[in-house]
Amino acid sequence: MPTKYLRSPNRDHQSPSTSALDAASLDRRAFVKLVGTAAIGWGVSPVHLRAAWAQRPIDPSRLIPGKDRRLIVHNSKTGVLETPVELLRQHRVTPKETLFVRNNQFLPGSLTLDPLPLDNWTIEIMGLVKAPRIISATELAQMEQTDVEMVLQCSGNGRSYYARTVKTRGTQWKKGGMGNVRWRGVLLKTVFERAEVTIHPSARFLTAEGKDAPLVPTAPDFEHSVPLHDVIDKAILALEMNGEPIPAVHGGPVRLIIPGYYGTMNIKWLHRLRLEAHETFNHHQIPRYRTYIRPVKPGTRLKRTFENTAPNWHQRVKSIIWSPLEDDVVAAGPVTISGVAWNDGMVEIEAVYVSTDRGRTWQRARLQVPASRYAWYPWTITVPLRPGQHEIWSRAIDALGRSQPLDGSIHWNPSGYEWYGVDKIRITVS
Amino acid sequence: MPTKYLRSPNRDHQSPSTSALDAASLDRRAFVKLVGTAAIGWGVSPVHLRAAWAQRPIDPSRLIPGKDRRLIVHNSKTGVLETPVELLRQHRVTPKETLFVRNNQFLPGSLTLDPLPLDNWTIEIMGLVKAPRIISATELAQMEQTDVEMVLQCSGNGRSYYARTVKTRGTQWKKGGMGNVRWRGVLLKTVFERAEVTIHPSARFLTAEGKDAPLVPTAPDFEHSVPLHDVIDKAILALEMNGEPIPAVHGGPVRLIIPGYYGTMNIKWLHRLRLEAHETFNHHQIPRYRTYIRPVKPGTRLKRTFENTAPNWHQRVKSIIWSPLEDDVVAAGPVTISGVAWNDGMVEIEAVYVSTDRGRTWQRARLQVPASRYAWYPWTITVPLRPGQHEIWSRAIDALGRSQPLDGSIHWNPSGYEWYGVDKIRITVS
Repeated sequence: MPTKYLRSPNRDHQSPSTSALDAASLDRRAFVKLVGTAAIGWGVSPVHLRAAWAQRPIDPSRLIPGKDRRLIVHNSKTGVLETPVELLRQHRVTPKETLFVRNNQFLPGSLTLDPLPLDNWTIEIMGLVKAPRIISATELAQMEQTDVEMVLQCSGNGRSYYARTVKTRGTQWKKGGMGNVRWRGVLLKTVFERAEVTIHPSARFLTAEGKDAPLVPTAPDFEHSVPLHDVIDKAILALEMNGEPIPAVHGGPVRLIIPGYYGTMNIKWLHRLRLEAHETFNHHQIPRYRTYIRPVKPGTRLKRTFENTAPNWHQRVKSIIWSPLEDDVVAAGPVTISGVAWNDGMVEIEAVYVSTDRGRTWQRARLQVPASRYAWYPWTITVPLRPGQHEIWSRAIDALGRSQPLDGSIHWNPSGYEWYGVDKIRITVS
Repeated sequence: MPTKYLRSPNRDHQSPSTSALDAASLDRRAFVKLVGTAAIGWGVSPVHLRAAWAQRPIDPSRLIPGKDRRLIVHNSKTGVLETPVELLRQHRVTPKETLFVRNNQFLPGSLTLDPLPLDNWTIEIMGLVKAPRIISATELAQMEQTDVEMVLQCSGNGRSYYARTVKTRGTQWKKGGMGNVRWRGVLLKTVFERAEVTIHPSARFLTAEGKDAPLVPTAPDFEHSVPLHDVIDKAILALEMNGEPIPAVHGGPVRLIIPGYYGTMNIKWLHRLRLEAHETFNHHQIPRYRTYIRPVKPGTRLKRTFENTAPNWHQRVKSIIWSPLEDDVVAAGPVTISGVAWNDGMVEIEAVYVSTDRGRTWQRARLQVPASRYAWYPWTITVPLRPGQHEIWSRAIDALGRSQPLDGSIHWNPSGYEWYGVDKIRITVS
């Protein structure tokens, strides 16, 4: 898996992570200019310098102060960090220090775990409403607060597994583009009530924008639409994460949190909500962040339309094995296998089944009660294993019968979203 | 399960099935009048007469000449017949004599297995098209023909199992509101090409009407909308069933066949196709023939809207056990269990798993290759069973990970559509 580095050879050849930190304190225009220059510089940089870089991994805690040094750096430009499973499995609630990061755009001053101030932060509510409203973050803080513990997962999580058939573009996430986090904030419907927002019946979508801006000024600004009917009674405008003001890098001071939805729909640095009759056709809503409705042969790149694709909204049911890990060597006898499972929270996870004979038979694992319907379900099972090579497979199924495909590549799509295949690891029993 | 009888005590108290046959030869207006009179008569009929009726089961072969006498009569007014599993399992392709029947409305002369003539039968194509067209059934017969073997299933099939929680209205189907049938006809896209139909890009739905009429003249005429994008390359205007002209009672001379869709969308006696921007809001499209998107507690009757429901379009993945049968007594030792599985044909069925320990462990059954992706997959497995009472459960899962809920009542809806729960039977091993 190639790691990308900040393209800033003209500034400091030896420590690109320092450059990223500096960039975080620049304003947007200056940052774009810097990156632009750097990109030009990159083209003419000597080959030996590139090689030298590749040998110096970036320290995530320098890229985003406060982050654990053991995180995997996928992209230091906007800050894309993955949580290794060894860290992910240590806590029921993922601490801010180890939580994954995936940013599409850039907000000056946001590459830190420190919070941004509530003061002067406002959110505009507009579109198919009787009268537009502007509410302040401090007003939000005075409204009734709701808590939710939930899986936050990048829709690209697991993308690297699509490479078993045809590799797809984008960050090559393994299992750690996710975490289980507690949020606190104001229910969307409460915000609308308290701000006296009257919505026209023709409004079917909620489109959200953050205060961040594209790295390239001419690029379309990041935004997403979600179905209003589905989110109105569960989305929250969150002010806290894990009991503290939301760290800047995770979208504070105000983030749109939609339990059960993929991370990308949980708009960071929220500053505008639009009530609309149609889903936005912004580049980030289509063709990005969508999957084909009908499966295609891996490698097939059909034009993505509103008819043949669906957005990365509801998280697919999924389980991962987090102990043992791929290529582990374990002692023969009873082997304990454990992991977590989750879905979109619409119904409960019914069971996680484990197979040690490549799908011929499956046994039900012990499932722990989750903190909420949107949180992950830890599971564990002990199976007798003889010495030799073994494959361990896990498959979650929920109360609606929604489960994981045996071969996750059935859901192949050009951008490698929504990997939810049966998790499969190989281990050696000695 | 109460059987309903034709309400015609004024005509012939002793043989209501004869009345139904007579009615079939009346024109629509006379029939409605007859039923109306009968309904009034019913209210004043002596209790002992009703009791006498209940003891005289209607002979399906008199209700619909040619049908097997062993079919279950659910409604003799429009002709609603179920295939007992004992008959269903005898053939890979369900013969016309035993195929289930479910009619919402009435077409004079259609209660027979005989075909209706192609002559003078036309289909109008209208709506968002450059110019409306009328094509004749005889023209269709001269176009390129396509064959498909597929499961035809009433969306009410299995409705009786919802009564395990809260009984729902409508025909109390068990497992036999389905069959596996071969159709031959012209692909919809071929029809459009040959008839030079130019469709406006805003057309997103295909709405189909048959020549039948409501039993009550003021009732809304039966019609359904399906998503044009999804059906355009698989729907056919069928002229033959199982190698013969389509029997009148099964929708000939021309029936809209949409492989993978529930039976109700396969409009019989097709005479009009409308290309439209919006799904029809006809009574039979909404609130009828829809299920809630979010599960509700059984018994909950939310107003059904376009937002909170989805139409009975794609068939849910499903398996049924057809041997042994509920309450069978079998000899101890290896017991062979068999049945069929199917889905909407979007992807293959991956496996059918069977559990004899109430879901703790599951074993993969042997699956036969189906005749088409839309046909049923016969499966079989042999398991050792000790003497005593046993529950046998079957669960199909497809290549997308779509499977059956352990408790099918999770999908409860006021009209009891789309039962697809894990199939469960109790048997005694002696």
